[in-house]
Amino acid sequence: ALASPAIAQSMPKITWRCTSSFPKALDTIYGAAETMAEFVKGATDGNFEIQIFAAGEIVPGLQAADAAAAGTVEMAHTASYYYWGKDATYALGTAIPFGLNYRQQNAWLYYGGGNELLNEFYHTEGLHTLPCGNTGAQMGGWFRKEINTVEDLKGLKMRIGGMGGKIIEKLGVVPQQIAGGDIYPALEKGTIDATEWVGPYDDQKLGFNKVAQYYYYPGWWEGGPVLNAMFNKAKWDELPAAYQSVLDAACRAANADMMASYDYKNPAALRQLVADGAQLRPFSQEILEACYNAAMETYDEINASNPTFKKIYDNQLAFKKDAYLWAQLSEYTFDTFMMIQQRAGKL
Amino acid sequence: ALASPAIAQSMPKITWRCTSSFPKALDTIYGAAETMAEFVKGATDGNFEIQIFAAGEIVPGLQAADAAAAGTVEMAHTASYYYWGKDATYALGTAIPFGLNYRQQNAWLYYGGGNELLNEFYHTEGLHTLPCGNTGAQMGGWFRKEINTVEDLKGLKMRIGGMGGKIIEKLGVVPQQIAGGDIYPALEKGTIDATEWVGPYDDQKLGFNKVAQYYYYPGWWEGGPVLNAMFNKAKWDELPAAYQSVLDAACRAANADMMASYDYKNPAALRQLVADGAQLRPFSQEILEACYNAAMETYDEINASNPTFKKIYDNQLAFKKDAYLWAQLSEYTFDTFMMIQQRAGKL
Repeated sequence: ALASPAIAQSMPKITWRCTSSFPKALDTIYGAAETMAEFVKGATDGNFEIQIFAAGEIVPGLQAADAAAAGTVEMAHTASYYYWGKDATYALGTAIPFGLNYRQQNAWLYYGGGNELLNEFYHTEGLHTLPCGNTGAQMGGWFRKEINTVEDLKGLKMRIGGMGGKIIEKLGVVPQQIAGGDIYPALEKGTIDATEWVGPYDDQKLGFNKVAQYYYYPGWWEGGPVLNAMFNKAKWDELPAAYQSVLDAACRAANADMMASYDYKNPAALRQLVADGAQLRPFSQEILEACYNAAMETYDEINASNPTFKKIYDNQLAFKKDAYLWAQLSEYTFDTFMMIQQRAGKL
Repeated sequence: ALASPAIAQSMPKITWRCTSSFPKALDTIYGAAETMAEFVKGATDGNFEIQIFAAGEIVPGLQAADAAAAGTVEMAHTASYYYWGKDATYALGTAIPFGLNYRQQNAWLYYGGGNELLNEFYHTEGLHTLPCGNTGAQMGGWFRKEINTVEDLKGLKMRIGGMGGKIIEKLGVVPQQIAGGDIYPALEKGTIDATEWVGPYDDQKLGFNKVAQYYYYPGWWEGGPVLNAMFNKAKWDELPAAYQSVLDAACRAANADMMASYDYKNPAALRQLVADGAQLRPFSQEILEACYNAAMETYDEINASNPTFKKIYDNQLAFKKDAYLWAQLSEYTFDTFMMIQQRAGKL
C-alpha cells in the first residue's frame, strides 16, 4: 500500500465534542467556544472539528468539567470556579474575589507561570486547561433598595454563588443559588432582594431593571473572570503537536475576542439600561472594605488547610502587588483624563 | 499520475519573509512577529513558514510598509502611524493622541468595524492588515527638569515623533527625530531636554534614568498603540483560505500575547527604575488639557482636508464616547479600590 503523505498523518480527521456550561442565550460566553472551534476548523482546513453543545444537551452546565475529566466528552468550556466546592483551587483558574483584572489575569496566566501552576493541579484531576474567554470586571448586580452601609447588607437575600457568596455571608447577606431563568420572577416577587448576573449586555436581556432599579458596581468578586477550555488530559496528550498548537492559538484568540466583544456590546447596553430607568450606584467604600476584609479572612482560612491553593494564591499575589503598582501610572491616568473629558462632554 | 490528496493542496509548503520595523533589542515588540510566526508554523505542521527580519536587514524600519506594498516582501510587522506623513489615515491604524486604550482598540477593530474601515483604505495602498500586538498606554518619557506648567514646555527640545510631535509643537516644544541608539548621548549632552520611548521594560534597557531622572506619565499620544501585520494585498489574496484563517488566529493570539508580556515585564522594571532613582511624575492637568485642546484642533484641521481620515475618525469617536462612559463603572472602580489597597500595603 502507498504510505500516506506525512501531512495527512499529522492533520488527521478528528471530531470532538465540547460541552459548554452555558446556555446559548449567554451568546458572548457561549460564543467564545464557537469562536475557538471556528478558528480550529478554519486553520485545519476542516480536518479538526469541535462541536459545541449547550449546557444540558449532554450534561448539566455545572458538570461540564466532570464530563471532560471522565472522557464523556473530549473537552468542556466552563468557568472553573463552579467547582470550587470540590477544591478551592478550582476558583483560581477563573477568578477569586478582589483578584486580578483582565489584563493582569492574562499576564499572570501566560507569563507569570499561572497556567502552568494551575495545570499541575488540573493534571491530577484528569484535565488540561487553557484560558478561553473573559468577561472583564462584572457589575455588582441589581438591588431593589439602595444599600449604603454594611448594616444594609444584614439579612439581604441575594442571588450570588461561589466564593463571593461565602464571603458576603460573613457580612449577613443570605446567598441564594438560583438558575438564570428563575431569577426574574424571584426578584419580582421579592423572594430575593438582589441578584448579580454579568454586565449590561447580558443583564439587559433578562430585564432586571424592570424589577430592581439600583444597578451597583463593581462586581468585586469577579474583577476579570477567565473562561476555561478544559480538555480530557489523555485526549489532549494524544493530539498531534500541530493540533495542540492550533488549539493554543485558537484559545488565545477566542480569549481576546470575547473580551473585545463584551467591550463593544456593553457600552450601548448600558446606555439603553439607563434610558430605561436603571439607577447606577457604586458600592460605598465602607462596604467594599468590609467585603475586602472578609475576603482576606477567607483566604487565610483556605490557605491554612489547602497547600495547593496556597501555592498558587501566593504566586498570583506576588504578581498582583507589582501589577497594581504599575497600573496606577500610564493606564490609569490616561483613562482618568479621558473619563474627565467624557463627563465634560468634550470627547 | 496520482492526484495529490486534497489536504496537501490546501496546506502547501510556503515560505514568506516578514520585514519588521523594529530592532531585535525591542524584544517584546519584535517578538510579537516571532510569536505570530511560531503559531503559524505550529498550526500548519511547519508547512507555512514566516521568516522575520529585523529593521535594516532587508529595508530600513520606516520602509517596512512600502516593502510589503511593493511585494519586496510578503508582509511587514510595523506601526502604521510611522507612515502618517504619506496620509494621516495611517495613524488611525496604530494610535492617535488621546485615542483609545488597549481594550477599546480591540473592541473597535474587531467588533466596531474599525479593521474593515482601515482595510478599505489599506487596499487602495496595496496592503491588507491585521492587528498584531499592542504596548498598552506608554509612558510620557524622561525629562531632565520637572515640567509643571504649559510655560515649562516652551522651547523644550524633546525626542518625540509622529502626530504627538506635531501636536506638542503647538505648545512650543521643539520635536526631534532621533533613532533609538542615539537618544542616550543626546540626552546626556543636553542636546535634547527630554525623550519618550515606550515603557519601563524597554526604557530601562536604554538607561535613560541615568541622564534624565523625571519619568512622566501618561504617554497621552499612545494610549493603546496597535502593532500591525501588513500583508502585500495580492499575496494575501492568493493564500489558501486555511492559511488566511491561521494568520487571523495567529495575529489575534500574538496581539493579546504581546500585551500580556508587557503587563508581566513592566511592573518589575518599574520597581527597579524607581530603586535606581527614577522620579515618577504625572503630567499636570493643565498640561494634559492644553495638549488635548491642541490635539482636537489638529483633528479638525485633518478632518477638513482628508475625507478618508474623517470617515474612520468619526466612526472611532462614536465608539469612544460610549466606551469611556462604560469604562467608568466596574473596571475603573474595581481597579481604583485595588490601587487604594496597594498603596495602603494591604494587598
